[in-house]
Amino acid sequence: MSNPTPSSPLIRIADMTWYEFADRVKENPIVFLPTGSVEQHGPHLPLLTDVILPVAVAEAVAAEVGGMVAPAVSYGYKSQPKSGGGNHFPGTLSLDASVFIALVRNIVNELVRHGARKIVLFDGHMENAWFLVEAADLALRDQAMLGRTDVKIVKLGYWDFINKATEAVLFPDGFPSWELEHAAVMETSIMLHVRPDLVRQDKIPDDPAAVFPPFDVYPFDTRPIPPTGVLSSAKSSSAEKGAVVLAQVVPDIAASLRTAFASASE
Amino acid sequence: MSNPTPSSPLIRIADMTWYEFADRVKENPIVFLPTGSVEQHGPHLPLLTDVILPVAVAEAVAAEVGGMVAPAVSYGYKSQPKSGGGNHFPGTLSLDASVFIALVRNIVNELVRHGARKIVLFDGHMENAWFLVEAADLALRDQAMLGRTDVKIVKLGYWDFINKATEAVLFPDGFPSWELEHAAVMETSIMLHVRPDLVRQDKIPDDPAAVFPPFDVYPFDTRPIPPTGVLSSAKSSSAEKGAVVLAQVVPDIAASLRTAFASASE
Amino acid sequence: MSNPTPSSPLIRIADMTWYEFADRVKENPIVFLPTGSVEQHGPHLPLLTDVILPVAVAEAVAAEVGGMVAPAVSYGYKSQPKSGGGNHFPGTLSLDASVFIALVRNIVNELVRHGARKIVLFDGHMENAWFLVEAADLALRDQAMLGRTDVKIVKLGYWDFINKATEAVLFPDGFPSWELEHAAVMETSIMLHVRPDLVRQDKIPDDPAAVFPPFDVYPFDTRPIPPTGVLSSAKSSSAEKGAVVLAQVVPDIAASLRTAFASASE
Amino acid sequence: MSNPTPSSPLIRIADMTWYEFADRVKENPIVFLPTGSVEQHGPHLPLLTDVILPVAVAEAVAAEVGGMVAPAVSYGYKSQPKSGGGNHFPGTLSLDASVFIALVRNIVNELVRHGARKIVLFDGHMENAWFLVEAADLALRDQAMLGRTDVKIVKLGYWDFINKATEAVLFPDGFPSWELEHAAVMETSIMLHVRPDLVRQDKIPDDPAAVFPPFDVYPFDTRPIPPTGVLSSAKSSSAEKGAVVLAQVVPDIAASLRTAFASASE
Amino acid sequence: MSNPTPSSPLIRIADMTWYEFADRVKENPIVFLPTGSVEQHGPHLPLLTDVILPVAVAEAVAAEVGGMVAPAVSYGYKSQPKSGGGNHFPGTLSLDASVFIALVRNIVNELVRHGARKIVLFDGHMENAWFLVEAADLALRDQAMLGRTDVKIVKLGYWDFINKATEAVLFPDGFPSWELEHAAVMETSIMLHVRPDLVRQDKIPDDPAAVFPPFDVYPFDTRPIPPTGVLSSAKSSSAEKGAVVLAQVVPDIAASLRTAFASASE
Amino acid sequence: MSNPTPSSPLIRIADMTWYEFADRVKENPIVFLPTGSVEQHGPHLPLLTDVILPVAVAEAVAAEVGGMVAPAVSYGYKSQPKSGGGNHFPGTLSLDASVFIALVRNIVNELVRHGARKIVLFDGHMENAWFLVEAADLALRDQAMLGRTDVKIVKLGYWDFINKATEAVLFPDGFPSWELEHAAVMETSIMLHVRPDLVRQDKIPDDPAAVFPPFDVYPFDTRPIPPTGVLSSAKSSSAEKGAVVLAQVVPDIAASLRTAFASASE
Repeated sequence: MSNPTPSSPLIRIADMTWYEFADRVKENPIVFLPTGSVEQHGPHLPLLTDVILPVAVAEAVAAEVGGMVAPAVSYGYKSQPKSGGGNHFPGTLSLDASVFIALVRNIVNELVRHGARKIVLFDGHMENAWFLVEAADLALRDQAMLGRTDVKIVKLGYWDFINKATEAVLFPDGFPSWELEHAAVMETSIMLHVRPDLVRQDKIPDDPAAVFPPFDVYPFDTRPIPPTGVLSSAKSSSAEKGAVVLAQVVPDIAASLRTAFASASE
Repeated sequence: MSNPTPSSPLIRIADMTWYEFADRVKENPIVFLPTGSVEQHGPHLPLLTDVILPVAVAEAVAAEVGGMVAPAVSYGYKSQPKSGGGNHFPGTLSLDASVFIALVRNIVNELVRHGARKIVLFDGHMENAWFLVEAADLALRDQAMLGRTDVKIVKLGYWDFINKATEAVLFPDGFPSWELEHAAVMETSIMLHVRPDLVRQDKIPDDPAAVFPPFDVYPFDTRPIPPTGVLSSAKSSSAEKGAVVLAQVVPDIAASLRTAFASASE
Repeated sequence: MSNPTPSSPLIRIADMTWYEFADRVKENPIVFLPTGSVEQHGPHLPLLTDVILPVAVAEAVAAEVGGMVAPAVSYGYKSQPKSGGGNHFPGTLSLDASVFIALVRNIVNELVRHGARKIVLFDGHMENAWFLVEAADLALRDQAMLGRTDVKIVKLGYWDFINKATEAVLFPDGFPSWELEHAAVMETSIMLHVRPDLVRQDKIPDDPAAVFPPFDVYPFDTRPIPPTGVLSSAKSSSAEKGAVVLAQVVPDIAASLRTAFASASE
Repeated sequence: MSNPTPSSPLIRIADMTWYEFADRVKENPIVFLPTGSVEQHGPHLPLLTDVILPVAVAEAVAAEVGGMVAPAVSYGYKSQPKSGGGNHFPGTLSLDASVFIALVRNIVNELVRHGARKIVLFDGHMENAWFLVEAADLALRDQAMLGRTDVKIVKLGYWDFINKATEAVLFPDGFPSWELEHAAVMETSIMLHVRPDLVRQDKIPDDPAAVFPPFDVYPFDTRPIPPTGVLSSAKSSSAEKGAVVLAQVVPDIAASLRTAFASASE
Repeated sequence: MSNPTPSSPLIRIADMTWYEFADRVKENPIVFLPTGSVEQHGPHLPLLTDVILPVAVAEAVAAEVGGMVAPAVSYGYKSQPKSGGGNHFPGTLSLDASVFIALVRNIVNELVRHGARKIVLFDGHMENAWFLVEAADLALRDQAMLGRTDVKIVKLGYWDFINKATEAVLFPDGFPSWELEHAAVMETSIMLHVRPDLVRQDKIPDDPAAVFPPFDVYPFDTRPIPPTGVLSSAKSSSAEKGAVVLAQVVPDIAASLRTAFASASE
Repeated sequence: MSNPTPSSPLIRIADMTWYEFADRVKENPIVFLPTGSVEQHGPHLPLLTDVILPVAVAEAVAAEVGGMVAPAVSYGYKSQPKSGGGNHFPGTLSLDASVFIALVRNIVNELVRHGARKIVLFDGHMENAWFLVEAADLALRDQAMLGRTDVKIVKLGYWDFINKATEAVLFPDGFPSWELEHAAVMETSIMLHVRPDLVRQDKIPDDPAAVFPPFDVYPFDTRPIPPTGVLSSAKSSSAEKGAVVLAQVVPDIAASLRTAFASASE
């Protein structure tokens, strides 16, 4: 899989003219809205990692299902110690819940206004998940108030589609947890595959997995947070592993979406 | 543990006079705010289960740490299929994210106004978790704008303190996951322990664990949701198991909180 | 009237399973939402008085009309000097207008979503009144936007149903005003009737009625406010008086609601 | 009192240049913000009655205390059957609570920004009262967040200053209640005094006082509402009565405000 | 044009009784909502200039088209250096965007509720323009949610109708720009025509036109702002020029509106 | 100027690691936030034109002043007929004012939280302008509430820096207006310079300039809007013209910002 992010204007809404968009939307394609964040990703990955990855995966899935991809929501919900290191790390630019929810809800409503009926909230930042739930719910209510009840929204995190076989490739020594995977093997490997120019390969850290208590403290208790912001070792990352992930995940997500939206139109 | 919910006015803020509250708050005690929901809990548990349980546990913990418990937030965030069966079940009365966040934020600010500095958001409804994060963050910002920076907030779900030994008691045949535990062995057992009068023991279901796809669909795809709303079998529930859970969890939460807030005042 | 708060799950939504709720709501019963506050009530009454009382009365009325009672809104609008002593009294935990309105509006919308069409906002805290008006108005607008125009909402304060005869029993020496009745004869008497265990009978104050100027000052001018927070003497309170109030008020409210909602369905 | 609304630019902020305002505000004068509504007032009074009256009274009081009067808030909270006939009467243009609160809060904050520290919310529309309470509370909080704690706000309805002697002049046959006084003797009389050109004297109604049940219904139950929108007879109105009201009320409000704000600066 | 602001109750909604409003609105007249601000207008014009002018013009246009004029929105968006001198000038009382938008949206919705379908947002304060766009858009969405799609809203600034011939009369030495016209020749001339009593004719300034850089700085860089707040010379103002402006603009706006709303009903 | 968008991670925050951001922000550099929209740009330009252009210019300016560029705000305020063709064109995905304001305000606050004190709102979409004003004002208020008063924000549209000489190059036959320049000579020329791969050169339209009346109608009157969405001819566009624009504008903006922020630190 050498080209996970084809630049064809038939996939990226950003690159289309309005004439092209108008033609495409008439076919009622699946429309993807990638959502990420500007968040610390250790000494080796760029701040936009959580945007770059879901955009890459979403574009690849869109290519398979004949869908199109809206410009990403680049700013996301506040980074938390257990899943992203925490909002206090320099460069982590986060939104209040109300702003993030309103933004996604608004974009979904706009897509629907122009004819989209199958929308995927394609997340690349774990902290966004529950606020995407709310955005979806509120957008559907808005549409119901306008008399439209034929909209269907799927919300997903691409990592949740990684199967046991791929997990074994990624973590031959045992899987930690998706939350501790922040800036670690999975993310680093996919970045090495899709945007190696942005990975500081000499700075990939090898810290032990962080250990957190079963509660959260505000303001953050920074003591259990690794100083690098990487929640488990990224040492074993490789572009090959990244390629394996995408080669499995992309067709599996595509298949799931075909099923999900097909049942919608029945 | 025969009385997990002592009615002493020195624990329940609801029962105190303002004179008593004024005396108590001067000691800077830990103040607990239980948060739950009005949510379907199968054919055997009442709609208020997610309030009854955290109130019971919080009052027991408060008794150990000399804390006090504010009146619960009875309404919570929208039930989701994978963790609560879903918002469409009759009697499930849920709040929009903005309302729930604003409510918790407001109550926290009020507690701080009267002198509380150590606050625990004590959750009994998994869907509330991320909105509690936001409420805590916004309340701390409000306080910072008023010039107060000495407030500390802990957020927890009591089930996250169940240790491996207790897990083994609850699930001798293997632990499913906390999310599938909705209205299942853990919740039913604690209810049998603290409020047996509210459990319809003849209606405890024995359905197999639900199986969900790795994505979410809005409006809900109701096909994978068990018709009872119970996400895994509750058959092996017992008051004894409930007692075991509380006997372990209550002192462990108490110990955690003592540590968390002690470090705060250093 | 020895049992004003029957615990039958056929009255309290909190105690019902979702199956029971589903059955009950099909009959289009009157659904009560008690609204109160956490507010100082002098040296002798608990902070939750304004919740305990409307819940007790609402449950009794519901028993008469075959209605059901939703979990109370425990937190209410800010206590004012002339009607509640004021928001500055320790333990008085109040909501901003926007939060209280949104909360009640949201719960009403949820009840309607599940089939309720006859809803009573059953207030126990005078300061809530105008914000309940707004919540009712906005909920009806929300429903209109969703195409539902068959919802009817009644808003009441139970004390407004006390008739002249009962007034004479309560105040043989002359009626002050409902506003000055805060934590005084009426509330204390009903509490002595329904929850005597929560009344500090040795601390019932006998202060003269407060005298306020015909305007309001913010921040509060605390000079005219009695230090106890009790706005007129509670000395002559008795459980018997409380029983008299409920014996008159409950059937009268029931009769009013039957008429109000009957005309709705004509 | 032949000129209750002197047009001196030293009283009306509307008429001042910014140079004049700058000079005046330096003296820390009492600043009045009249609040009214656009609301039906029967067949004989104009829709803006609730603005005209408080502006007239506020300007007269300002003349006595050396204060200044900001442009009125012309739109107010929703008319209710028991105090204003109801929001359904043609021409009644009302604001949602959130809008009215935000508007008043914002204007108060602006006055404070330019140096005002003594502000009077001078109400002419009973339905506004509780939302003015919230606006005052929120504005004070805003100022506290900006570090200013020397602001004092008085909220009043001018009719609450009418004393027993004036009451006897207005209602020789007995006083109904201020709420039923909507578009009745008091308002009509003052209008006859200050803006007789706007009173349709041939259309002053003589309906009996309205009788309402002790609860409120939404959507309104219009049956108890008099078809004219006038809640009790206006027949005995006269310009002389209006003059008597102002002659008593204006100096009494002035005296109250001098006291209220004097104690503030002690 | 000696009387641009006729006081006939058939034009001003403020002066109508509800019976009169009810009769008038049945004819589906054009309804004008003037929007202005309380803003510095130099040493010679009153703070309410931006309200007085659009009200005068709107009433004159309404007289021509048989329309009616709602009470003005007196408070507007924040004054900016390049168009109004800036929000820091004493007496400039401005609204946050959210408040102004909500206020106008709410009033439009109220007018529609009572039957208006042709609404003109008639602006007198340049800074309001884009927030009026949003208010119009949101009100139309609200109405769509209520099922009404026959509402049409026109938004205009009366100065945009001044034609080249009138421009030549106003500015024989060349037209600066409408933005620099703040408190200058056009506004001063119309004020001299319609409210000469409010113009301090001895204080009309003759400053050179302000020069601003092509960007904006917050907090304001006050150096390019003339100390008087007048952005170009007002010296050549005259009542005659004001009369010329109205004599041209009023019939031209009337003609435009007839066309705009006629096409609406086709 | 062959490379207006250098990809150095020392300019793009997106590409930096948090370590790099932390180092850079300590120098208190100018931080640029490009704001655009997803908006129709005729048959020849992509929907993301209003993002691509300000990002390109901002990165070039940042390179000159040693600044850094935050990830762009890709979604903007609603396209209007007179400046962008209108919101109804397919693919035009716009935000409500409240969402756009909140988003920009939030990002500014986040930049300040991490140490930025010199922020440029670098606009590429004319419709955003007034909402950026509000975002800047509210962010400064937020910071004031947190006790920070040393933040300075500049807001600009890059086209406003085009000088007369460049105007003459772009429009040898006379300058229309910046508003009619939508998708016309200036934008097309810069796109041909910086992203020629995204320009459909065979589809550049040659329509006459649109003519609009001096008012706005909602819902839009689409008759005066050119069907292509291009408001004046783009025929004479060329990459050379685009290069001329950037060669003039970039150093001029850089110089302006140096001055603006220098005076800030004095």
